[in-house]
Amino acid sequence: MYPLGKGLFAARNQWYIAAWSKDVTRDPIERWILNEPIALYRTRSGAVVALEGRCPHRHFPLGKSRVVDDNIQCGYHGITFSPDGSCVRVPSQNAIPARCAVKAYPVVELWQWVWIWMGPPDAADPSRIPDHLAIGLSDSAYQVDGNSYHEVPGRYMLMHDNLFDLTHFPYLHQSSIASGDFSSAKEIRGQGENWISGQFEFKDIDCPPIYADMFEYHGRINRDFGMKLFLPCLHVGYDHFFRASASTEQHGALLGKLSIYHAITPATTRTAHYFFALGRTFKRDDAEFGRSLMKGIDAVIDEDMHATREIESMLGHMDAEPQDLLLKSDTTCVLGRRMFEKMIRREIAQAFADKDTDAVQA
Amino acid sequence: MYPLGKGLFAARNQWYIAAWSKDVTRDPIERWILNEPIALYRTRSGAVVALEGRCPHRHFPLGKSRVVDDNIQCGYHGITFSPDGSCVRVPSQNAIPARCAVKAYPVVELWQWVWIWMGPPDAADPSRIPDHLAIGLSDSAYQVDGNSYHEVPGRYMLMHDNLFDLTHFPYLHQSSIASGDFSSAKEIRGQGENWISGQFEFKDIDCPPIYADMFEYHGRINRDFGMKLFLPCLHVGYDHFFRASASTEQHGALLGKLSIYHAITPATTRTAHYFFALGRTFKRDDAEFGRSLMKGIDAVIDEDMHATREIESMLGHMDAEPQDLLLKSDTTCVLGRRMFEKMIRREIAQAFADKDTDAVQA
Amino acid sequence: MYPLGKGLFAARNQWYIAAWSKDVTRDPIERWILNEPIALYRTRSGAVVALEGRCPHRHFPLGKSRVVDDNIQCGYHGITFSPDGSCVRVPSQNAIPARCAVKAYPVVELWQWVWIWMGPPDAADPSRIPDHLAIGLSDSAYQVDGNSYHEVPGRYMLMHDNLFDLTHFPYLHQSSIASGDFSSAKEIRGQGENWISGQFEFKDIDCPPIYADMFEYHGRINRDFGMKLFLPCLHVGYDHFFRASASTEQHGALLGKLSIYHAITPATTRTAHYFFALGRTFKRDDAEFGRSLMKGIDAVIDEDMHATREIESMLGHMDAEPQDLLLKSDTTCVLGRRMFEKMIRREIAQAFADKDTDAVQA
Repeated sequence: MYPLGKGLFAARNQWYIAAWSKDVTRDPIERWILNEPIALYRTRSGAVVALEGRCPHRHFPLGKSRVVDDNIQCGYHGITFSPDGSCVRVPSQNAIPARCAVKAYPVVELWQWVWIWMGPPDAADPSRIPDHLAIGLSDSAYQVDGNSYHEVPGRYMLMHDNLFDLTHFPYLHQSSIASGDFSSAKEIRGQGENWISGQFEFKDIDCPPIYADMFEYHGRINRDFGMKLFLPCLHVGYDHFFRASASTEQHGALLGKLSIYHAITPATTRTAHYFFALGRTFKRDDAEFGRSLMKGIDAVIDEDMHATREIESMLGHMDAEPQDLLLKSDTTCVLGRRMFEKMIRREIAQAFADKDTDAVQA
Repeated sequence: MYPLGKGLFAARNQWYIAAWSKDVTRDPIERWILNEPIALYRTRSGAVVALEGRCPHRHFPLGKSRVVDDNIQCGYHGITFSPDGSCVRVPSQNAIPARCAVKAYPVVELWQWVWIWMGPPDAADPSRIPDHLAIGLSDSAYQVDGNSYHEVPGRYMLMHDNLFDLTHFPYLHQSSIASGDFSSAKEIRGQGENWISGQFEFKDIDCPPIYADMFEYHGRINRDFGMKLFLPCLHVGYDHFFRASASTEQHGALLGKLSIYHAITPATTRTAHYFFALGRTFKRDDAEFGRSLMKGIDAVIDEDMHATREIESMLGHMDAEPQDLLLKSDTTCVLGRRMFEKMIRREIAQAFADKDTDAVQA
Repeated sequence: MYPLGKGLFAARNQWYIAAWSKDVTRDPIERWILNEPIALYRTRSGAVVALEGRCPHRHFPLGKSRVVDDNIQCGYHGITFSPDGSCVRVPSQNAIPARCAVKAYPVVELWQWVWIWMGPPDAADPSRIPDHLAIGLSDSAYQVDGNSYHEVPGRYMLMHDNLFDLTHFPYLHQSSIASGDFSSAKEIRGQGENWISGQFEFKDIDCPPIYADMFEYHGRINRDFGMKLFLPCLHVGYDHFFRASASTEQHGALLGKLSIYHAITPATTRTAHYFFALGRTFKRDDAEFGRSLMKGIDAVIDEDMHATREIESMLGHMDAEPQDLLLKSDTTCVLGRRMFEKMIRREIAQAFADKDTDAVQA
């Protein structure tokens, strides 16, 4: 489906960010991922559990049920499932029917969030999750404030499109962070097996007002900015600010460094989850500053949610799949979309191949 | 449709409860039954009228129109229909077009509610309505408070499923009437042409708190409980409480008897009407007690509505018709569902047979 | 679609009223017409611009974007379109892609409203718009208050149906203008290439209360009333009030004249735009009286919106296209609907013919 090819929604054999750690507690929550209801909760020892969120008996949502000891007990008839998805109790009978079970999803809790593997459990390989130290999370040089969760009122790819093309800053974010003319900055693009990146260098520019206030410096600056998407869900960015220098080769004194994290997880075919975090090397112990910074960022995110809602609504009115008009600034977007399509097509091909193998073996 | 077989919704050649008597007045109301809009009102003499609730001229809802004398007058152009559905006035002309008429539904007002026959009018046989004296309504030994109407945010069969399996009490109603472990009680099941029943005997159990308060008795009790569904819409229950006795053969002194009435009528394919009444042999003249009792019951019903809404929503997200995992406690449920299916299939077969007959005769 | 033939929605090669002039400003608005999003705004010199309201780059709504100088600048990435629909700026690059453009709709601003041509621009002929002097607008004898805009919660033809049959006055508008028994009045019908009209003469009747108050005259009156629809969107009416006279040939003294304007424009397949204006030859300089008059009219319009909403909702519940029961009072309605169908079918036939010509020429 738009903006991917016809019938292509999202890859399953992948790790996605399901929740902020703080949002997963002893009280279960329901979160839809890839069109599946998932119940998330913690055991007494604090381990995160992710189970299929629909009781196989009468389809009551387990994510709106109760946790008892380490298990989840359906809120309708009390059928109880353990963290591995097996049924451990049917209150109305002693025997437990063989097929009474829910799917258990592999999860990994890293830094402040919970990753979930949506493919076959035995294929879950946590080493495929981006290295949190390498990407700046868990790096003590940065104070990372991660607490922002947003329900996206549109399909997940609209948020990737948004991040693939930063030339929207001066327009969509005119009233907030309309800073940095990305179209005129020098861009270096990189691409790997499961990542795609763009780097921008700004030399001798005015310091955008919100950063000027942040650094208490209103002179000319150099700025290094980059974004890297680790498919399928995590965009990691850096934003380094320096005083401008007379030399064209060297930056002036460092003003500060930001690290930026956007995670996007498909919820239903027309909604998504969005998680945002921001790291900084300055005023690290100033919690008040951190809160104020996140508040400013929330206004920016509201603008992105607005654009997503409007576009999803527009798509809902169109009879046919829309054609985009592609611009030079969409190069990363086009390459990124192709990576998503390839990832999904590979899975579909593999599923067919597996079926054939099964048929031969049967 | 789930939980019945594919394409099976609801039986038409049946009596359903359409409304509480008190809700049918000289001001018409609109009530959808089996996906049909119906206008309900009373004539000057108090007789209940049920007419097709859509004016054949421009499809304006008659249930949102006006009653004039004994007739209903469309709120748009004033076309007027008499209680038998025939048009008696077209304000803009003298002649009344031959096919200007709406369907009139046979109704029977019994006790405090209005029964409606949804099949061909000439097949309406009121003797098929459960005998109200036999089931405890109109029995002077009982004070029956009947005043509870609820729009069910889910398909009607979800409410039958709910009542077929009472092992949900300790879970869905944990905070209210989580009393009586139906799974461990002895159950006797009965079945007839158009009814199915279950009886439960509890011996020497703690008196559930709300009943203990009701009887002002906090000792051990015996309890006889039973539910009987008269297809397609009325569940009648009894709940008899006794002091426990040393004898295993006999009950101790009677504490009180309750009679319970649940009526469920399909509205649209995904909504239903639900009517609840409760009779008691004790504190019969204590209106304040009756109100307080019904208030407590309303909290329980809210929980059933919650489960129904959640399950209907879950079903709406599923691509395919769901498969239930059936438990021993679902025996009555499975038998009951089969009775509904049989009742609907019989009608479909009959309709085909009638068509063939018509074809032969034509 | 109902009430027109299967698959027939609305004619495209037509002028429709898009907005009140006062509602089109330097701040763009979005208005859906014939299922297309349209951005309306004014240039610095005050000219009205109507552009396709969807940016071809990422489908963001231009009607919710910004006007810069005489152009509209997409609120997402700043792509800018001039009043003729051509792209004049892509902020992120110097070259403008050849196919970067939006459709520009011909508009004509007349009196207090904006007309839009929804067909091929080169076929736009403003002389096909009803002559505003002839229909009483721009006639200095009348003070016309035009300021009423309503979103119709139903398909546009329901509003035409409403105006084709005024016998709904005593019923739908019972509490407001239930005056003038149109069914008993003498009616003269007229029809032309693109118009249809009805005229009614009332002799020696009671003056309806609201008009009696208006004219401060409570005696018997004669009344001449007429409505004429200029397809596809403008109903023009006159309502002339005279003192009754002893002569059956002549009216008594003129009490006052009203001119009435209803414009209906299809928005989506199930919603419409409705514009209302009222002219009067009396108390022309009494602005307070004008406001009070329009307030009374708004109550009437609320009743029409109510009927439309109820009928659209009823249609949404019906499995098949409904059959109307046609009455004598529907003669104008039936003739009018046929004119709409003919107008649409002619376009479809023409489109096929054009395709064949293209095929032959290719």
